[in-house]
Amino acid sequence: MRQVAVLGIGQTKIDEHWEFSLREIGGDAAFSAMQDAGVEKVEALFVGNMLSPLISGQNQLGTFFSDWIGLWHQESVKVEAACASGAAALRAGLMAVAAGEIDSALIVGVEKMTDKAGHDITAALATAADADYEVEQGVSFVGINALIMRRYMHEYGWKHADFASFSINAHANAIHNPFARLHQKIDANQFEKSAMVATPINLLDASPIGDGAAAAVIVPAEKVASLNGKPRITVAGSASSTDSIAVHSRKDPLFLSAAYESAKRAYEMANVEPKDIDVFELHDAFSIMSALSLEACGFAERGQGVRLGLDNEINPNGRVPICTRGGLKARGHPVGATGMYQVVEVVQQLRGECDGTQVDGAKVGMAQNIGGSGATILTHILKAE
Amino acid sequence: MRQVAVLGIGQTKIDEHWEFSLREIGGDAAFSAMQDAGVEKVEALFVGNMLSPLISGQNQLGTFFSDWIGLWHQESVKVEAACASGAAALRAGLMAVAAGEIDSALIVGVEKMTDKAGHDITAALATAADADYEVEQGVSFVGINALIMRRYMHEYGWKHADFASFSINAHANAIHNPFARLHQKIDANQFEKSAMVATPINLLDASPIGDGAAAAVIVPAEKVASLNGKPRITVAGSASSTDSIAVHSRKDPLFLSAAYESAKRAYEMANVEPKDIDVFELHDAFSIMSALSLEACGFAERGQGVRLGLDNEINPNGRVPICTRGGLKARGHPVGATGMYQVVEVVQQLRGECDGTQVDGAKVGMAQNIGGSGATILTHILKAE
Repeated sequence: MRQVAVLGIGQTKIDEHWEFSLREIGGDAAFSAMQDAGVEKVEALFVGNMLSPLISGQNQLGTFFSDWIGLWHQESVKVEAACASGAAALRAGLMAVAAGEIDSALIVGVEKMTDKAGHDITAALATAADADYEVEQGVSFVGINALIMRRYMHEYGWKHADFASFSINAHANAIHNPFARLHQKIDANQFEKSAMVATPINLLDASPIGDGAAAAVIVPAEKVASLNGKPRITVAGSASSTDSIAVHSRKDPLFLSAAYESAKRAYEMANVEPKDIDVFELHDAFSIMSALSLEACGFAERGQGVRLGLDNEINPNGRVPICTRGGLKARGHPVGATGMYQVVEVVQQLRGECDGTQVDGAKVGMAQNIGGSGATILTHILKAE
Repeated sequence: MRQVAVLGIGQTKIDEHWEFSLREIGGDAAFSAMQDAGVEKVEALFVGNMLSPLISGQNQLGTFFSDWIGLWHQESVKVEAACASGAAALRAGLMAVAAGEIDSALIVGVEKMTDKAGHDITAALATAADADYEVEQGVSFVGINALIMRRYMHEYGWKHADFASFSINAHANAIHNPFARLHQKIDANQFEKSAMVATPINLLDASPIGDGAAAAVIVPAEKVASLNGKPRITVAGSASSTDSIAVHSRKDPLFLSAAYESAKRAYEMANVEPKDIDVFELHDAFSIMSALSLEACGFAERGQGVRLGLDNEINPNGRVPICTRGGLKARGHPVGATGMYQVVEVVQQLRGECDGTQVDGAKVGMAQNIGGSGATILTHILKAE
């Protein structure tokens, strides 16, 4: 298997882009990544997207975007794994380059979510859960996560206020990220007083939706000697794992087994351990998910993920910097695009381009993207050389 | 890149399966393929599907099915390219095995279409077209194909009756295929008198929708010496190409340039020419598509694809046998599953398992799967050794 490098990255600001179409948002990120990579053509396009059939009435997004950006007669395809669609598209492109089938690929994660009313979005997001055994019973996607959080608080004795540091850190970091959806600091008092969404998840536990796209150009690492003085960034580890779609089918609903499995394989492939990870862009769709991810990936004991936040270990100067560009919570969560935002942000950290939230000397970064309530989880580890 | 072999195949009958769920249909094909391959586990699952978010309210079909068939903690993902989703899933799996990342993959193409009313299905199928520039103007998917057929008849002077042989051949062959949706012979008179759908496309020009799933297990070819006396079947060629999503943007709406490109690359990869292809499972969603595919892939001159049918060259004893198990027209067209039905049928031909429509001594077979009105086209060439 050939080693693969990230040659260029691009992203749009996450927002309510009522003035821009699905085409334009994805195209913007694609062109930015190609410009950053210094290429005018790529051999294939892999698009990660979850909701365009439901929200925009548009399928076949691979060809939809290759058409828009002028890549006719190149291979193009869409990959979908709910909120993990972005990372799943990266992995599909990675396999094609690693196999030697193509010598360059553009990966675009894209989502246009604000063209429908809120209740339509809630219904669309519920397609990530089990339609027959969860959604049919009336539970929404945030409802499922609320059940998990409530159980976690019951099992380990944490109070809701103990989760505040995850959201406070995310909001503080997002202020330095021009592409982030939210640019306001929050404090513990605001966190506790925020409007309830689904007990115990309130508005400041939950990530905002939005329109956005993030993209990367990948090539065989052997073709990249140096990048105009920037470090060469390789995809050192890539793995995907799954658990049951429905939470009630899991042996332990408080253990993200697919995060554990995919991180384990990615660590092995990259020949690193948790202590070697300088920055970890995790999938904080809800604050409870930050705690569970940290635990499953070996950064905290079971039930103790919350403590990392309380001990100030998760900020850019801490032992385990997470959500350094705002995370899903404050950078925003345009679902099918999120996995590619995470990868783009890890690349920014490894390049040293994160003024205000730069992790000093970051050489190894990890991005973890979760589909459903822990059903599909992909982990990528990137290294600067 | 490692060579890949098809170790096992499975399929369900295409029908209105109101008594079986999406889960059960896909699971049936998956288990059949694993049983045929003689394996109880695979390392990854790639699912091709187009419509489940719109019809079943279910996304994340990769993990949905790995959960159902007991493949927890294995990589699973869904690939979507409209009606070419099945072949696109195969190609994604192929890349992962070819890269050396995994040593076995299960590919499942699946679609459950009959749980909604006809007008909902028409709207869902239109997501394969350009939502902004085609669908928004009020044209349906069959309407787009009708415009192409009308133009073809105008340019080359063919009458509607000249297309009859495509449908007559498909229906005649389907009678011998227990998995086919339709089991009745038709004649030229019935073809001409059939109810109009979108002029000039009538009911017997158009393929029926349906519920169905088809699957295959693929492994590195080096791991397959012989298969209990059956020939070893390798994927000798695989390619994907695209044209614009909207027909009006194409240089020539009567030339399937993505079929031409993907077939050309697949021929080169497999080191064969059109004359070497013993059986060609093409994408006859509408009779006009048979003519255009034959022309783009080098079996007929421009505007002369229809003649192959009139000259009796397309039946199992002809020079270019197509739709030998009924094609989309009579085997049926469960959209996201179709590409995998085609591959399964080519394998059946190469194994010599097609009583009634067996192509004598078939050694090289081609399957071509089309997404949209020619937007995404994948070509696979299989060889028996």
